[in-house]
Amino acid sequence: MSSEGYHVAVVGATGAVGTMMIRILEERNFPVRSLRLFASSRSAGKRLKFKDTEIPVEELKESSLRGVEIALFSAGASVSRTFGPVAVSSGCVVVDNSSAFRMNPEIPLVVPEVNPHSLKNHRGLISNPNCSTIQMVVALKPIRDVAGIKRIVVTTFQAVSGTGQRAVVELEQQVKAWVKGESMERSVYPHQIAFNCLPHIGSFLDNGYTEEEMKMVNETRKIFEDPSIAVSATTVRVPVFYGHSESVNVELKSPLSPEEARNLLAKAEGVTVIDDPKNNLYPMPIHAAGQDKTMVGRIRKDLSVEHGLSMWIVADNVRKGAATNAVQIAEILVRDGMI
Amino acid sequence: MSSEGYHVAVVGATGAVGTMMIRILEERNFPVRSLRLFASSRSAGKRLKFKDTEIPVEELKESSLRGVEIALFSAGASVSRTFGPVAVSSGCVVVDNSSAFRMNPEIPLVVPEVNPHSLKNHRGLISNPNCSTIQMVVALKPIRDVAGIKRIVVTTFQAVSGTGQRAVVELEQQVKAWVKGESMERSVYPHQIAFNCLPHIGSFLDNGYTEEEMKMVNETRKIFEDPSIAVSATTVRVPVFYGHSESVNVELKSPLSPEEARNLLAKAEGVTVIDDPKNNLYPMPIHAAGQDKTMVGRIRKDLSVEHGLSMWIVADNVRKGAATNAVQIAEILVRDGMI
Repeated sequence: MSSEGYHVAVVGATGAVGTMMIRILEERNFPVRSLRLFASSRSAGKRLKFKDTEIPVEELKESSLRGVEIALFSAGASVSRTFGPVAVSSGCVVVDNSSAFRMNPEIPLVVPEVNPHSLKNHRGLISNPNCSTIQMVVALKPIRDVAGIKRIVVTTFQAVSGTGQRAVVELEQQVKAWVKGESMERSVYPHQIAFNCLPHIGSFLDNGYTEEEMKMVNETRKIFEDPSIAVSATTVRVPVFYGHSESVNVELKSPLSPEEARNLLAKAEGVTVIDDPKNNLYPMPIHAAGQDKTMVGRIRKDLSVEHGLSMWIVADNVRKGAATNAVQIAEILVRDGMI
Repeated sequence: MSSEGYHVAVVGATGAVGTMMIRILEERNFPVRSLRLFASSRSAGKRLKFKDTEIPVEELKESSLRGVEIALFSAGASVSRTFGPVAVSSGCVVVDNSSAFRMNPEIPLVVPEVNPHSLKNHRGLISNPNCSTIQMVVALKPIRDVAGIKRIVVTTFQAVSGTGQRAVVELEQQVKAWVKGESMERSVYPHQIAFNCLPHIGSFLDNGYTEEEMKMVNETRKIFEDPSIAVSATTVRVPVFYGHSESVNVELKSPLSPEEARNLLAKAEGVTVIDDPKNNLYPMPIHAAGQDKTMVGRIRKDLSVEHGLSMWIVADNVRKGAATNAVQIAEILVRDGMI
């Protein structure tokens, strides 16, 4: 480890996740020697705050990442495909928040609370999982370790910030138009999102699932290193700004009572148990926003299957679902001398 | 059948469901000879429109329903318990939208598209199921008839109108306050509902489930006359005004392809299939509002279990979920001379 810290870059610095990455690097006091910020030419020249400095946003070019030791990418899969391998070849370690490399068997897909060991022998590129997967595996890991998981049925309630800043603005504008009695404009989503639910996140595939749903299936198996885990996912966009919620039903290999699950989760890394429903205490997106923990509640015995549990899992999709997870990965790389 | 129609009453006439019952009686041209409207003393004296007349709202008293032949109740379980049996003893047939009698084995719990035969030999009291149950069984009936159902895992996205008119106003007020930058007031829900999700509908029971969740379990079994159907429910309130959405995963007894399910549903009574996701066509609450059909889409093979199907079911919770279903029951009673 460099005694003076690392030369760090954030690629996609002006997006919802990129700006949060900058904030998380600062919050967690990541050992930054220099920070460079990249975005498309449209954003070049903007200045973003990091600690006491203002850093200019540069246009990302082929040679931009020379000399950078750690780059956090969150600029979409095509940018990652184009610039990620180039950066690696010049000696940079890339933590990539896009879907570009997640299912590549040679590239680790990492949630620090779940599979940090997969970082060993990385080849410079590391994938950050999808937001809806991260919070689910953080909550299921301690349960899986004790009782094993046969099958997961999950339905998500995903915030518009998962789509990006433009979607946050779209929901704001639609709500403001509704209050004024004006018609709602839309450009990000194919339908009105205010006061509505869209069972549609990512593109539809030939099997009738969305990309987002298949990410939850495939990434969960890869992170748990267990292709036998059966996963059925339905992912839904809801008119919430920040915080994804998930209704998760698991069928376990061996019995585990709700009390045992609650105790395991209470001790688990990265998890906060909020489960006192008779006092109206359960996880909610408005409380998750701004937090790095995955909140778990409504833990109860599934009455419909042997060894079943149901639960409600909520996390800040921009933080733990993206930016915080990426910075945590970088912290492990630094801590374990893997950079 | 009376050639001039029936003496009809709506009890709870000023509530969200009651006012919709009046509208549905008019829309469907129910054979009304006279219509009387009842509510609590607080609302007595108000006048509500029915066809070309304005009908005064009366305070409901012990003797109020004498001479009434059909009463539609939607004033809560305690009003139904107090006044339902009294009405029946004076010769009235009561269709009750409360939970008071739903699980009483001597009282039919009826969804006209699913179990109209259960009306035979009724004893004057008939229960209307819970909104979230009705739309699910309407959509599952044709599938069950062909392939049988072993297990249902359902997660709901329920509109505030299901709580009543006060909750519609609460969401409106919270959104307006948010736009003005003011703090949000709440009195109906224990937490802010605007831009939030509450995994909490009805009171919490000792088993960790809510009343709403157990209604879905128990009512589904009663309506399908099959206590062996396993049901796991998670019910969630979302910031939507009208229209409940449901993510439903079913494990069938025998194989049924998504295409076969789609064809069965396309021919089924009370169902509209909206399932062309690549053209962004799927059911949504904003389209369900004002409709009497149950909309089904996102029909796909569950990849995680043998003979599994996943689907997305949306209906207007105040209409098909309550008022329309009650009026449809009354129509069958009239048609089949059971009144």
